[in-house]
Amino acid sequence: MLRRKTVGNINFFMKKADIGLIGLAVMGENLALNMESKGFTVAVYNRTVPGIEEGVVDRFINARGAGKNFIGSTEMRDFVQSIAAPRKVFMMVKAGKPVDELIEQLIPLLEPGDIIIDGGNSHYPDTIRRTGYVESKGLLFVGTGVSGGEEGALLGPSMMPGGSPAAWPAVKEIFQAISAKVEDGTPCCDWVGEGGAGHFVKMVHNGIEYGDMQIITEAYQVMKDLLGMSADEMHEVFKEWNKGDLDSYLIEITAEILAYKDEKGEPLVEKILDTAGQKGTGKWTAVTALDFGIPLTLIGESVFARCLSAQKELRVLASQSIQGPKASFTGDKVQLIADLKDAVFGAKIISYAQGYNLMKEAANEYKWNLNYGGIALMWRGGCIIRSIFLADIKKAFETNPALENLLLDPYFKGVVEKAQAGWRRVCAAALTNGIPVPALTSALCYFDGLRTAQLPANLLQAQRDYFGAHTYERTDQPRGKFFHTNWTGRGGDTSSTTYVV
Amino acid sequence: MLRRKTVGNINFFMKKADIGLIGLAVMGENLALNMESKGFTVAVYNRTVPGIEEGVVDRFINARGAGKNFIGSTEMRDFVQSIAAPRKVFMMVKAGKPVDELIEQLIPLLEPGDIIIDGGNSHYPDTIRRTGYVESKGLLFVGTGVSGGEEGALLGPSMMPGGSPAAWPAVKEIFQAISAKVEDGTPCCDWVGEGGAGHFVKMVHNGIEYGDMQIITEAYQVMKDLLGMSADEMHEVFKEWNKGDLDSYLIEITAEILAYKDEKGEPLVEKILDTAGQKGTGKWTAVTALDFGIPLTLIGESVFARCLSAQKELRVLASQSIQGPKASFTGDKVQLIADLKDAVFGAKIISYAQGYNLMKEAANEYKWNLNYGGIALMWRGGCIIRSIFLADIKKAFETNPALENLLLDPYFKGVVEKAQAGWRRVCAAALTNGIPVPALTSALCYFDGLRTAQLPANLLQAQRDYFGAHTYERTDQPRGKFFHTNWTGRGGDTSSTTYVV
Repeated sequence: MLRRKTVGNINFFMKKADIGLIGLAVMGENLALNMESKGFTVAVYNRTVPGIEEGVVDRFINARGAGKNFIGSTEMRDFVQSIAAPRKVFMMVKAGKPVDELIEQLIPLLEPGDIIIDGGNSHYPDTIRRTGYVESKGLLFVGTGVSGGEEGALLGPSMMPGGSPAAWPAVKEIFQAISAKVEDGTPCCDWVGEGGAGHFVKMVHNGIEYGDMQIITEAYQVMKDLLGMSADEMHEVFKEWNKGDLDSYLIEITAEILAYKDEKGEPLVEKILDTAGQKGTGKWTAVTALDFGIPLTLIGESVFARCLSAQKELRVLASQSIQGPKASFTGDKVQLIADLKDAVFGAKIISYAQGYNLMKEAANEYKWNLNYGGIALMWRGGCIIRSIFLADIKKAFETNPALENLLLDPYFKGVVEKAQAGWRRVCAAALTNGIPVPALTSALCYFDGLRTAQLPANLLQAQRDYFGAHTYERTDQPRGKFFHTNWTGRGGDTSSTTYVV
Repeated sequence: MLRRKTVGNINFFMKKADIGLIGLAVMGENLALNMESKGFTVAVYNRTVPGIEEGVVDRFINARGAGKNFIGSTEMRDFVQSIAAPRKVFMMVKAGKPVDELIEQLIPLLEPGDIIIDGGNSHYPDTIRRTGYVESKGLLFVGTGVSGGEEGALLGPSMMPGGSPAAWPAVKEIFQAISAKVEDGTPCCDWVGEGGAGHFVKMVHNGIEYGDMQIITEAYQVMKDLLGMSADEMHEVFKEWNKGDLDSYLIEITAEILAYKDEKGEPLVEKILDTAGQKGTGKWTAVTALDFGIPLTLIGESVFARCLSAQKELRVLASQSIQGPKASFTGDKVQLIADLKDAVFGAKIISYAQGYNLMKEAANEYKWNLNYGGIALMWRGGCIIRSIFLADIKKAFETNPALENLLLDPYFKGVVEKAQAGWRRVCAAALTNGIPVPALTSALCYFDGLRTAQLPANLLQAQRDYFGAHTYERTDQPRGKFFHTNWTGRGGDTSSTTYVV
């Protein structure tokens, strides 16, 4: 059955669409509208499930899409035929099985050189696999991170594309046109790398987003529970913070949220249940870091903090039973708020240093030639973690593209050294008073661990050699030379290579 | 080719072996010797790889096994035939592919009702899969954790068997005979549960081991770098700690390690390189916790601490460049050492509470009927984490088998409440002085988070609703009712269900 909607576009029978988009949920709709607003004709398609997703295309074409350059199809074959070759098919559907199913449906309808684009939150190993699979069918594949939520999708998201390098020249114009721009007009979208590189960078972005949010909420809890500040007072602090080094979307919306009053004129935030969801890309980031052996402590703690928040009933029970210190702060409140700002800034630097560390390791592993400054630029606008701060990260990697750790950059070294005194005071005050600040302290411990030439892992290696004959290296001998000690005289002198604890 | 070695066992032609063991690396050899010493006749086999693993069986039979009840075979068929039916074949080989390969080789040689046992450090999902597979072939499968290193394998390990329940009565006598015993003679081995339950519990055990080791090394670093103590002074402290609540194998060997002098009469521990390996079961535990959504922060930090320790060159570089506070402690040194003991004890309690939380969640998921007190008993002796402390955990779950969190047990609640003041002082002092204590602080933050009825996740949920229309619940409304606010007036009033950050 052929059912096309023409929508006041007189070019319809002459001109095919520049790009096709599948999946008209809120993100897909907004991306389609964004593309159209930049002068592209967009073919749109949504699967039709009787009773559930019936008439989605029609509704879109007749409502938000009315009078605009859209070509709607309710059959996938018509949809594909309505796109100019080489076809670009942008899927904006739920990550996982739906993506694989759509790819299977699209492959027989497409022609060599056509491009399938996955703009969902796919896990990067899936994108690596799909790139290879789609290429094996003579087509090209792009897996692109799209960040910025509903509003970003409509007005300009941050986009992180990877996949088949040959696809980039064909999609570059559209991608860079619809993406966010920084002040000088540079688009927050550039080619990231082969295979799963785009979705990997998007995953790290989301992990960092978890971290940024956790840091902010810990500062909020310290202000609320240690300093006894009201929502309005906290609003003022965040508004102020948004003018300096911390200038960022998340600080900005935090200020707005704190000011928001419900129908009774009371702060709405105080009536929201304190149980956060997770299971998404933040968790993937932490798992990936564990797999790569990269210390990504702040994001790890942020994911776990969400897990603990979800154990609401247990916490209420524990709060009624277990005694802790009564929070009381007798020092200089203004100073502690200034210290808090330093703590948030210091922890944020650590989080990005850790995230970049993870990307570097993945790039080594997968032979991606990541442009670290470029990634900071992609995150500068459009996305949830956009901030002034990212301009400094871009600068750091421009100055030294091989920079091993953000903290070794002169600017970041300087600011973190300056921030540490206040940061330490905040952590000490919070731990003394029983206020949980897992991300702020974890980041500080990483900072101190990184600065420590001699960590106590020598004792740990001795323990492993003692009970498992795992051997150790020595500080006074070349690396790669392994020793075993018969610590007790009871165990053997032979070392173990098979028993891995 | 039939080549059997008889080893002075006149029963050889009359009596078949009680159990067979494959894999004569150090752990396998010691387990075989342990079994034999308890009166069992043990068939042994090792694969033969020319030039690499040639003559392994012969060497064992003629050396450590000489004059003992072993039946050695160099052909797998002979090995299997030398075992009395129903056959018990204990594999002690490297986890992973070798286990699957051996299973494939064994299946055609075995008869219905025979039992394949995997005593290696297999990952529990593999054990779940193998149990089903082996059962589908008419055989039974046991995946058992074996902990205690070389010495434990020889003298009595902690054993955590799971798999096919029908196998347990057949292997129980041997397993409990060779396992460690607590003071009253109770074996540190009991049936854990179906499928992968045994290896799951072993995995958590190893994660906890990572945590215990990390806690101890942090205490060591505080004593060394903040209090400037010598190895001998620290030896005295750990020796003292080993007499009280912290009485445990790891504290005991730490004391011995600190006392150990090299050929020059200097503490050997100070010459060991501070880079710890990981990649094993500690990482699995952290990943599993992330997958289950259980806050397992202390073990997570412990794994990441090993990762950071491995970045030795980066740390040396950073230590030369980044300035931190000069560690100086002017307070009461004796008090701080007492505080440190409280910190170690408090953090240890948290780690076990988190580990038990993870086991409870897995039991829910996999429908395992775990005996939590029994698990504590299995860990009481033989294994690396053996301690006095585990007797109290056993007691807690005996008193209340449904105990939701260890910290809600009256004893643990009491001791952790008592420990917290010193623990807080240690963390504050370490963070102030730039000494990294990620596990001690992470545990304290979890403790405080658990005690906090109102975590700041309300703000986080507001942020998620603000930028992604993720909706939230309200404290003044029933759970399960979701709300969305148009925070800016710009975004839509519709909530998102598809875009998961």
